[in-house]
Amino acid sequence: MSGVSPVAAYSPAQPSLPTPSPFSFSVASTRWSSRPSIHLSNLLLRSLTLLFSFVSALSLAAPSPNKNEGKLHHGFLAYTEFKYCFIVTILAFLYSAYQLFKGVCDMAYRGILISDMASDYSSFILDQLVGYLLISSSSVVVPVIQQIEQSTSLWKAAIVSVSMSFAAFLVIAASALLSGYKLCKRIIW
Amino acid sequence: MSGVSPVAAYSPAQPSLPTPSPFSFSVASTRWSSRPSIHLSNLLLRSLTLLFSFVSALSLAAPSPNKNEGKLHHGFLAYTEFKYCFIVTILAFLYSAYQLFKGVCDMAYRGILISDMASDYSSFILDQLVGYLLISSSSVVVPVIQQIEQSTSLWKAAIVSVSMSFAAFLVIAASALLSGYKLCKRIIW
Repeated sequence: MSGVSPVAAYSPAQPSLPTPSPFSFSVASTRWSSRPSIHLSNLLLRSLTLLFSFVSALSLAAPSPNKNEGKLHHGFLAYTEFKYCFIVTILAFLYSAYQLFKGVCDMAYRGILISDMASDYSSFILDQLVGYLLISSSSVVVPVIQQIEQSTSLWKAAIVSVSMSFAAFLVIAASALLSGYKLCKRIIW
Repeated sequence: MSGVSPVAAYSPAQPSLPTPSPFSFSVASTRWSSRPSIHLSNLLLRSLTLLFSFVSALSLAAPSPNKNEGKLHHGFLAYTEFKYCFIVTILAFLYSAYQLFKGVCDMAYRGILISDMASDYSSFILDQLVGYLLISSSSVVVPVIQQIEQSTSLWKAAIVSVSMSFAAFLVIAASALLSGYKLCKRIIW
């Protein structure tokens, strides 16, 4: 409301302006404010996935607190299933870090990293894929936990890891629903 | 083009007709014919899931061809993982049988079993759930296959079962995409 009223900007002289119209910004901000809740939920879900997958990978790879065992880690590398779970959680961690970074970048400059359409398609496919990988790795670890000796440091680490991995799966399943919704809006509208 | 032209049906006298308008039928048939491909793909995917989950469950539960072992089945009940896989494939079989039955019923009478909206929501949720259960059970069985003795009848049955279970997972993942698309169209339109 400083000087020029919004009505004055609709004057017929406006289309001849060579400079960028202030309306491009106002349209962009309207579009932005129409879906802040989806964007914020997306950021929240990505942060949770990042946290859960980080804790899951860390609990397996952290140095053993029991000095008598004389190992650098809990010895999870002896089991193929734990290695699989570790690799999948690292992948989920990297993927959510990328998505979180992209989400924060989009707040300042939309589509600077990757175009909106490519991002919607790739997010949808990768969310599904990471979700299936996480549920698969969590399931594989459960029978191994029943086999190894209870109350060892590896057993405790595996319990923490599988719980966090399952939590990350639940969050990424919600992310997949959200990105499916965003993709559908793009296809239909 | 028999007798009454389409233009004549748009006469102002039409809203006062107490009898059901012929337009209600024409609209319904248009809506139906506009998506036969989705309906047919749905039926095809359901049939494939039915087939794959049936073969997966059957290969575990079928009588052992080796008479010397003296068992009624391959002995898969000794392993919790195989029991889990068996139960999940039976669930997937029952679910796809229901969906196939509903799909065939819908060809004659739409919404006679369950309303269209409830069906879209429940199909979407159950597809996701059955897909996650199938990938989980397939993953759990893989380490057990590596442990048991090779070339026994149980080993062969487990290989067939896990392949079919994974194939059923792939098909139901495609079904989940299709029902997600149908649900999105319902929400947005």
